[in-house]
Amino acid sequence: MKLGMIGLGKMGYNLVLNLLQCHHDVVAYDMNPRSVESAAREGAIPASNMEELVSALDTPRIIWIMVPAGDALHSVIDSLLPHLDEGDIIIDGGNSNYKNSLDLAENLGKRGLHFFDVGTSGGVDGAENGGCFMIGGDVTVFRHIEPIFKDIAVDKGYLYAGPSGSGHFLKMVHNGIEYGMMQAIAEGFEILEKSSFDFNYEEVARVWSNGSVIRGWLMELTENAFSKDARLDNIRGVMNSSGEGKWTVETALEFQATAPVIAMSLFMRYRSQDTDTFHGKVVAALRNEFGGHAVESTQ
Amino acid sequence: MKLGMIGLGKMGYNLVLNLLQCHHDVVAYDMNPRSVESAAREGAIPASNMEELVSALDTPRIIWIMVPAGDALHSVIDSLLPHLDEGDIIIDGGNSNYKNSLDLAENLGKRGLHFFDVGTSGGVDGAENGGCFMIGGDVTVFRHIEPIFKDIAVDKGYLYAGPSGSGHFLKMVHNGIEYGMMQAIAEGFEILEKSSFDFNYEEVARVWSNGSVIRGWLMELTENAFSKDARLDNIRGVMNSSGEGKWTVETALEFQATAPVIAMSLFMRYRSQDTDTFHGKVVAALRNEFGGHAVESTQ
Amino acid sequence: MKLGMIGLGKMGYNLVLNLLQCHHDVVAYDMNPRSVESAAREGAIPASNMEELVSALDTPRIIWIMVPAGDALHSVIDSLLPHLDEGDIIIDGGNSNYKNSLDLAENLGKRGLHFFDVGTSGGVDGAENGGCFMIGGDVTVFRHIEPIFKDIAVDKGYLYAGPSGSGHFLKMVHNGIEYGMMQAIAEGFEILEKSSFDFNYEEVARVWSNGSVIRGWLMELTENAFSKDARLDNIRGVMNSSGEGKWTVETALEFQATAPVIAMSLFMRYRSQDTDTFHGKVVAALRNEFGGHAVESTQ
Amino acid sequence: MKLGMIGLGKMGYNLVLNLLQCHHDVVAYDMNPRSVESAAREGAIPASNMEELVSALDTPRIIWIMVPAGDALHSVIDSLLPHLDEGDIIIDGGNSNYKNSLDLAENLGKRGLHFFDVGTSGGVDGAENGGCFMIGGDVTVFRHIEPIFKDIAVDKGYLYAGPSGSGHFLKMVHNGIEYGMMQAIAEGFEILEKSSFDFNYEEVARVWSNGSVIRGWLMELTENAFSKDARLDNIRGVMNSSGEGKWTVETALEFQATAPVIAMSLFMRYRSQDTDTFHGKVVAALRNEFGGHAVESTQ
Repeated sequence: MKLGMIGLGKMGYNLVLNLLQCHHDVVAYDMNPRSVESAAREGAIPASNMEELVSALDTPRIIWIMVPAGDALHSVIDSLLPHLDEGDIIIDGGNSNYKNSLDLAENLGKRGLHFFDVGTSGGVDGAENGGCFMIGGDVTVFRHIEPIFKDIAVDKGYLYAGPSGSGHFLKMVHNGIEYGMMQAIAEGFEILEKSSFDFNYEEVARVWSNGSVIRGWLMELTENAFSKDARLDNIRGVMNSSGEGKWTVETALEFQATAPVIAMSLFMRYRSQDTDTFHGKVVAALRNEFGGHAVESTQ
Repeated sequence: MKLGMIGLGKMGYNLVLNLLQCHHDVVAYDMNPRSVESAAREGAIPASNMEELVSALDTPRIIWIMVPAGDALHSVIDSLLPHLDEGDIIIDGGNSNYKNSLDLAENLGKRGLHFFDVGTSGGVDGAENGGCFMIGGDVTVFRHIEPIFKDIAVDKGYLYAGPSGSGHFLKMVHNGIEYGMMQAIAEGFEILEKSSFDFNYEEVARVWSNGSVIRGWLMELTENAFSKDARLDNIRGVMNSSGEGKWTVETALEFQATAPVIAMSLFMRYRSQDTDTFHGKVVAALRNEFGGHAVESTQ
Repeated sequence: MKLGMIGLGKMGYNLVLNLLQCHHDVVAYDMNPRSVESAAREGAIPASNMEELVSALDTPRIIWIMVPAGDALHSVIDSLLPHLDEGDIIIDGGNSNYKNSLDLAENLGKRGLHFFDVGTSGGVDGAENGGCFMIGGDVTVFRHIEPIFKDIAVDKGYLYAGPSGSGHFLKMVHNGIEYGMMQAIAEGFEILEKSSFDFNYEEVARVWSNGSVIRGWLMELTENAFSKDARLDNIRGVMNSSGEGKWTVETALEFQATAPVIAMSLFMRYRSQDTDTFHGKVVAALRNEFGGHAVESTQ
Repeated sequence: MKLGMIGLGKMGYNLVLNLLQCHHDVVAYDMNPRSVESAAREGAIPASNMEELVSALDTPRIIWIMVPAGDALHSVIDSLLPHLDEGDIIIDGGNSNYKNSLDLAENLGKRGLHFFDVGTSGGVDGAENGGCFMIGGDVTVFRHIEPIFKDIAVDKGYLYAGPSGSGHFLKMVHNGIEYGMMQAIAEGFEILEKSSFDFNYEEVARVWSNGSVIRGWLMELTENAFSKDARLDNIRGVMNSSGEGKWTVETALEFQATAPVIAMSLFMRYRSQDTDTFHGKVVAALRNEFGGHAVESTQ
């Protein structure tokens, strides 16, 4: 099929490569012309702006947007709208909040446009070689674009999840689970590190990647990480986060769902971003007040 | 090689099958004669008591014990000791506390016996078709028995972890990670269940098993579980535990390691075993005291 | 001073009593005429509707609204607005979200009205006999109404907290702390309950209320609760919540503040409202899948 | 009454002052002769060694030991034993593990000695001016020594808790609750600190100490702390711990009691003692592996 790709960052660019390998025709655009040139060298049809991208597609057009959620996404859609026709299809493959996708689907629907919220997992490598796609939107229109997902996903790696919002909802929860799994793995290695045994972490991750109950891609990546830096001496333990974990916890609160593990994995990330904490100061001060326990001075 | 297997429960029996398939000679004993008969039908040499098992082995004997940790293990070892000779090798493949293994290794070592603590993962299926083995003990003696593990493990699925205790230590931490990962997955599905979307959980688990960041054996098992009972309507959410998760948290406390996710996954298991809680009663009573908030009556 | 009170529920009615005892003139209104009659019998000036209440006050009018946050509050304000004059003062003493108070202050400010968000703590008893008030709004106007708070608060029990929103923000965080403290106390008693000692909980709460580090009003209320029902046999451990705890956790997420204890106290409340959990079903099903561990049936 | 006090540290010395004020006769001993001299100046009868202390008491002797739990306690008891007579009474007022108290009571009981485990709360100030005492041991013998506790406790601030071990058990759980309450308060102030409001924390703690639901001694101490250092700029947020919080969590694990808040308050203390964490490194490395997210370098 022929489709447009807007946003040629790590994920978008690799998706283009994946689509080209599957013999789809891709019209590619990015704010950065060099990314467009690179994509063109790989076989994509270059577009120097969004209007050109739209013109190069046949109706009903299929346009996959792979830009950061929020302002960047809305800005792209605003720029596209004047050039689109009824029946055109917009895919948001980014990490948007599912509530945003619900709104977008409704607003674009009023203009006769079809919107799909597509959660994408599998990392940069998955984007290129076969990832995992969770898709929300109209089921009839989905059948029209399904061949794309069949091609770029790994075997069984795509799912029509349900109506609009369900794709990004699944991706959000996926990331919440990911936070919890990563923290669980990490806590395990912290306990190993504090033990008096002298484990080889790469080997530990390897044996746990082979036949154990906890085997999986994250454990394989753990092995990779330790293969490069045996005790992670060069890495600071600052754990950033990009939003979905927080949304998952907010959603749990909204639904009154019990999600202590996902919540704690998020709080430990926040904790890691502070070198000292105000709550720690308060507790230290209180211990000093009632028990005369010494406090450590900041000087 | 030739070795004895004591304990033909789910794990031990399947290990025997695995060993036989790899052309090892297995002398099999269990308190239950029917299990011994079954093993014999599969090709094992039956032993009707431990003395017979010991006699049927060549020195240095290799005896794998696969019985519940604690009393059962110690009882087996006590029964074996009078019949063993210096240089014999005892393998504890059960879920023993690593501190127990440290003690055993020391005590058996004084008698000239070699002890290996072997953590076994991969479930019943892994035991039969290739599991994951974490092995602690003397490294020189280990080289002698390594061919066994090479055969019964999946590819790269065994590790000489270090001195005595390290095998069961790794298994303990493995299970702690497992608790956290399972709870993370479970919380994700709880959020799906409380959403207004109508997800097909089997399909969700399938797409997450294909190409996603959180793919792995636990997610595949999740798919299996939902394939049998689409919304788990027939299962009560009572989460039992068998010890290693608790030991992992105790070890974290001992080492002053931060393990909130593993700890919370354990506490949620305990919580699931109570239909009502005393802490809940206290909070409900307090809300009533200061705010006049209604309490629910037990009648 | 003379002021109006709209909303004569548990809190509002007791505030009226408190104000009357302090020799303030209170014009009282509630949707329920019987509450107005009761207040009148205590010395309040009855109003049969909001217009009448407004008319009975001198400008600049002081109107304290003590109704549930959200729709009820906004409905009262909408009804009041046509009758108010520039310079009038509206106090929201309810448990409103501080963001709502920020909006209200701005909107009412545009009409020349002064808005105060007042967090109220101390329970029903505090409302009548001296509570704790956290006040946000314009500092100059605050000096005008300060005498009211000086009278109805316990000694030092009121605070001009800062600009609009700060009063309800402090109350929100106060309640978050309250959740954590209550859960901590409750967990302590759960551990006592599961021990083999046979503690008298009323006596325990009493001794902890006298001279201990953890003495305070909550512990005194714990003593009261156990004095009525020695083991809380008649109370189900269902812990409801009314919003501020959730807002506190949401705020912590928004600020990337580490608040594991407040978050866990909230999640345990949610957990208590479910008799069974979907996350529990998933974990039980997984244990069955990999280890053949029995599940409990719902039948 | 006449009693001996061994251990004149912060707590023991202040208990001596308290006892003297209540007109008890106190024979005082400490390894540090200067502490003994100080106590003598206040009216205590000095003892230069334990034998002398024992000799100075009438049978049945009452000896209160106020030394660190564990080795110090056992060493004192070992030194005392040869000089004691059947019927003598030993009080351990330190923070001993209740299991240790169970053992001690049994061992001393075999020699005809009476042992009381006394949990002491209220801080240094409470020791001098009236604290809180939780007492485990034989109830009949307790009636003999009860007058001492009646005098040195604040009003209703002592409790015969039950048989041996129950006093230290209550103290342990008390401290667990204390951990949770302190962390709850501290998290609240952390949220205030991260807000855009400019709160005066001393004033906040003061208003919360007057009439609020969360008023109590810890909040008063919070006010004191902020009165000395308005934003705790001079204090590092390192939260040490001395054992009872850990024992409380271990006990919760042993009883399968759900204690997430106490556990998390303990883990946050452990976390505060590490400037960087291995679990953080693992999560940061994993994010880099699958998403190409930048890590922060330790250099």
